[in-house]
Amino acid sequence: MVIVIKKNATEEQIIEITNRLEDYGFDVHRSDGRQRTILGAIGVQHDFDTRKIKIMDGVADVYRITAPYKLASRSFQREDTQITIKDVVISSEKINMISGPCSIENEDQMFTLAETVAKSGAKILRGGAYKPRTSPYSFQGLGEEGLKLIRKAADEFGLIVITEILQIDQIDALTKYADILQVGARNMQNFALLKEIGKTRTPVMLKRGLSARIEEFLMSAEYVLANGNKEVFLCERGIRTFETMTRNTFDLSAIPVVHEKSHLPIFADPSHATGLRSQVPPMARAAVAAGADGLMIEIHNEPEKALSDGPQALLPDEYLDLMDELRMIAKAIGKEFA
Amino acid sequence: MVIVIKKNATEEQIIEITNRLEDYGFDVHRSDGRQRTILGAIGVQHDFDTRKIKIMDGVADVYRITAPYKLASRSFQREDTQITIKDVVISSEKINMISGPCSIENEDQMFTLAETVAKSGAKILRGGAYKPRTSPYSFQGLGEEGLKLIRKAADEFGLIVITEILQIDQIDALTKYADILQVGARNMQNFALLKEIGKTRTPVMLKRGLSARIEEFLMSAEYVLANGNKEVFLCERGIRTFETMTRNTFDLSAIPVVHEKSHLPIFADPSHATGLRSQVPPMARAAVAAGADGLMIEIHNEPEKALSDGPQALLPDEYLDLMDELRMIAKAIGKEFA
Amino acid sequence: MVIVIKKNATEEQIIEITNRLEDYGFDVHRSDGRQRTILGAIGVQHDFDTRKIKIMDGVADVYRITAPYKLASRSFQREDTQITIKDVVISSEKINMISGPCSIENEDQMFTLAETVAKSGAKILRGGAYKPRTSPYSFQGLGEEGLKLIRKAADEFGLIVITEILQIDQIDALTKYADILQVGARNMQNFALLKEIGKTRTPVMLKRGLSARIEEFLMSAEYVLANGNKEVFLCERGIRTFETMTRNTFDLSAIPVVHEKSHLPIFADPSHATGLRSQVPPMARAAVAAGADGLMIEIHNEPEKALSDGPQALLPDEYLDLMDELRMIAKAIGKEFA
Amino acid sequence: MVIVIKKNATEEQIIEITNRLEDYGFDVHRSDGRQRTILGAIGVQHDFDTRKIKIMDGVADVYRITAPYKLASRSFQREDTQITIKDVVISSEKINMISGPCSIENEDQMFTLAETVAKSGAKILRGGAYKPRTSPYSFQGLGEEGLKLIRKAADEFGLIVITEILQIDQIDALTKYADILQVGARNMQNFALLKEIGKTRTPVMLKRGLSARIEEFLMSAEYVLANGNKEVFLCERGIRTFETMTRNTFDLSAIPVVHEKSHLPIFADPSHATGLRSQVPPMARAAVAAGADGLMIEIHNEPEKALSDGPQALLPDEYLDLMDELRMIAKAIGKEFA
Repeated sequence: MVIVIKKNATEEQIIEITNRLEDYGFDVHRSDGRQRTILGAIGVQHDFDTRKIKIMDGVADVYRITAPYKLASRSFQREDTQITIKDVVISSEKINMISGPCSIENEDQMFTLAETVAKSGAKILRGGAYKPRTSPYSFQGLGEEGLKLIRKAADEFGLIVITEILQIDQIDALTKYADILQVGARNMQNFALLKEIGKTRTPVMLKRGLSARIEEFLMSAEYVLANGNKEVFLCERGIRTFETMTRNTFDLSAIPVVHEKSHLPIFADPSHATGLRSQVPPMARAAVAAGADGLMIEIHNEPEKALSDGPQALLPDEYLDLMDELRMIAKAIGKEFA
Repeated sequence: MVIVIKKNATEEQIIEITNRLEDYGFDVHRSDGRQRTILGAIGVQHDFDTRKIKIMDGVADVYRITAPYKLASRSFQREDTQITIKDVVISSEKINMISGPCSIENEDQMFTLAETVAKSGAKILRGGAYKPRTSPYSFQGLGEEGLKLIRKAADEFGLIVITEILQIDQIDALTKYADILQVGARNMQNFALLKEIGKTRTPVMLKRGLSARIEEFLMSAEYVLANGNKEVFLCERGIRTFETMTRNTFDLSAIPVVHEKSHLPIFADPSHATGLRSQVPPMARAAVAAGADGLMIEIHNEPEKALSDGPQALLPDEYLDLMDELRMIAKAIGKEFA
Repeated sequence: MVIVIKKNATEEQIIEITNRLEDYGFDVHRSDGRQRTILGAIGVQHDFDTRKIKIMDGVADVYRITAPYKLASRSFQREDTQITIKDVVISSEKINMISGPCSIENEDQMFTLAETVAKSGAKILRGGAYKPRTSPYSFQGLGEEGLKLIRKAADEFGLIVITEILQIDQIDALTKYADILQVGARNMQNFALLKEIGKTRTPVMLKRGLSARIEEFLMSAEYVLANGNKEVFLCERGIRTFETMTRNTFDLSAIPVVHEKSHLPIFADPSHATGLRSQVPPMARAAVAAGADGLMIEIHNEPEKALSDGPQALLPDEYLDLMDELRMIAKAIGKEFA
Repeated sequence: MVIVIKKNATEEQIIEITNRLEDYGFDVHRSDGRQRTILGAIGVQHDFDTRKIKIMDGVADVYRITAPYKLASRSFQREDTQITIKDVVISSEKINMISGPCSIENEDQMFTLAETVAKSGAKILRGGAYKPRTSPYSFQGLGEEGLKLIRKAADEFGLIVITEILQIDQIDALTKYADILQVGARNMQNFALLKEIGKTRTPVMLKRGLSARIEEFLMSAEYVLANGNKEVFLCERGIRTFETMTRNTFDLSAIPVVHEKSHLPIFADPSHATGLRSQVPPMARAAVAAGADGLMIEIHNEPEKALSDGPQALLPDEYLDLMDELRMIAKAIGKEFA
């Protein structure tokens, strides 16, 4: 931590600041320049609230110079994280595709779509049984009944299952039927939930919150990692900005930044980012080109009758065509799909 | 719902759109202008996904013309909501002050601060027993032990208690010790939690999410109301913007907007909005002047030793001075503190 | 324009609103639903301020249902705009590359870089002679001397020239030496400048403002078009959001949206969007994959000595390698570079 | 400037970074902690691009520890700036009110409104002769004819005149008729214009850009100051955020921050911030309570016929009532109106 002292600070103030820092357990190094005095405080705890120093008399500014996350950082672990689930390996080596409907609706739907997913070469089937809906009047998911359906469909076509968790008391049911737990954008800072998921050994995909800075995104991953679960990967799904012609602003620039700061794989979800079918293919292409380690794309055989998010679902044929293009883009940047 | 037809749409497309709307249960009125054809679709469900129509061929734009919330709206209930808790009345009539420490730390602290709160004329004591912390390495609250302390301190000084709920399984403990449940910004769209709180009959203060539009804020209130709990009030606490010199951007313009759209009282929290002690007084003054129905302000007797958010806590004397000023501002706009 | 009447509005209020609309020159169609009365107002001028109606008693909401821009819209012109400058054609047919240094610094630099640009197969040379700098203490450009240098270098290698205009009195010098005028992000709403450029017949590339909605971006293009200059193309260069780990948020989702709403070509500038050399290649790849009609990329032979923006400039070899990859991505999505 | 070295950086890299810093003219102090090496670089120029170091091998992060502005900073000048114009003093001592119509329309209008302004006790008359309009089809102002009208009306009622400048070639006309030049939000980073205004000796009110950080706001003031014009004051007028129910988000928290960082007075403009008449009074009250050094409020005698921004103009009587309330709020916080 670096403390910049105000130009007109008194010697007494500097001593008071130094003492306070030492009380908090820091080693303090003082550097008197021509214009400014600067204190370097070594040994900052990961959760130190820098405002404690910022509000002291004589302090101009305080800079934390270490990231507030540790286990999630590239400086803690240099090698990219690899997560192996049955025959699926999530990593920076190959691009994985997650696909399926927004909500699990019935057996026919799940089997039809699982077949499409398998046909496309993807290995991870998605589908929500517990749905977080903005409106209390909307379809809230089939619950455990849905979990059974997606498991059955996945097993039939040799796929693994990812599905969303909304609350702690769903952990037992979800870890029974699913291979990967998904934490949605609105729960990215539901710390109580993250803690409990951290105590399981089920891999988890953590989606970026609507207004989460990348640093906070990694801090939320830290919550899971710090509780013992090392099988975490991330998913960019659009952030909230002032733009109103798009549903969210798909922040693909987050991908190279996360790759630099962290060893965790990062996927991208163009379906939720754009919210409109016609915009999913260009943004899916862009996500692969930007270096995403995987994609999540929603599909539906009868989108106009879908119980949720039909307008952003690709039709099976559109999806299969898109996959062909995505493979070519992957090749162009020296990667390939799993 | 109003559907604007594209200039070059065919008659077949218009008929197809009309039929689809009727299938969804709408009455459709067609209006052919010189330049544009417009369809009015009457009878929209509160949760209808307008994108279902937007993606159809021939559609230029779709406008929902009714709010997606109902029970929270001024058109559903014209009179301002009044919430009576013991001798406290939360409403647009008088301004209520909530005050106390960020975290409940020990008996001495709670009794000292409760005494200050009572002395200031405020009637609602705050203090967190379960803390949502960005870092997994930070103090996470005293839990039920803390709840007992705040209850005891409040009873001693004739105050009522508000405290934050983080997860569903805390409802029993919290409703036993607290008079008002607080839902924090990060849980504003934790719909699972909102639903369960909606089933209690304990009043709830819902804080605005960091990136929540006012419409979504009211939708989250709707979740509680729709489940049967009518005792809801709101709290503006700063939104996330591009500005980095302030912690959040305190959106006081939300106050007159909420008053126009909804009958629910709205408080303001300058402590979390600004995050720095020196900025709390000017923003507290501004919140009262903007018409807030109440304020929440953090105080601490030894902020430098506080286990959380010390840098934004006012000292007891600063707080008492501020209250005097706030009363004068209230008077200037024809209101008074409860 | 659609006017939604409040539930409890009186008949007198509705008549008053109708009369006001007629005074403003609208044809009004009234539709009385079970729950709501709606007025359709036909004949809205492109610049009508809808707030004039919104503030009237009895009005719940007002929706403009036509875009505020006209000449820039796809409904005004269905075919994509093509801009021919010597042997260069800017259009949706082929992807054009603009490349060169941030600032024109000296003859050696311009000739070295122009040679690289030509070698890469690109046809448009960039370089700033008048620099808009955030700091008044920074290098402000070589002025007309610089214009002569870039023209000479471009002519030597068969390239055309794009350079930025900052103020009206530069139009004569710039149109003498440059083939394309660039309007920077900070001037996107410098309407005085846009008007004057609209009176020239020099093609113009308009960059998106840091906080410009797509609708406003198109409105600024409209300023140029409405003054008679039809040779306009756009450039996405990142928008301002809450994220601090990236310089801007590169809004690639704007590309398919602009293609849908407008006939104007849209380029992308990953150099300014990211501000860091290491992030330029992934974002350049993503921009091509997202469907950009062209790219603008900064290069420098000695970036550590560059007078501006060296840290975001690619080295000539990095740039040539990147071009090879971009050609492959273009091919993967069925396009090619000009 | 503080440079944090990567954990795994080599000694060669650290030496290379040190040499580069010395080449750029810095004195370098090295501090080797247990976990990290940190370099302090003393003597940073105000316009140094820190990315030049950030991209070097071995660098983890770079922190500028001095503000990029100088003349505008509180550490350069401790006393609040005072600007005296005839009998008006703009400063932190007393609150000044600027009032008048959005656009100058005709003599009757200007005289009627100037009379209201004078009656309210305000001393500064506003009115636009050159209008920056989002739409090229909107009223663009009366030009010099308008300047004559506002001057005449102001002289009649003993007021001084503020009016907006859009382009450099308007400086002569504007400095002839106006006492204060206003630079609008969209021109806050029109550096060419700021430079020329800096060469005049006419006081200038600089409005905050829609997406300007406070630091950039002060940098734009620096442009004027650095060119010799010391008579600068600022105006907060709302920033762009994700909220759509308000026109802008009025960032009142900027007021105490500017007061801390700079000696320049800061006004607030609730009319443009909110864009709706009904929201102007609560936000005007809040601005005074937050500590604004002045306010700018639009009024109109016939707002429904106003050529621009009528919906946000207060009627003369509303304005006079509001002024009474504002005086009481000022008193409550120990201030008074000029």
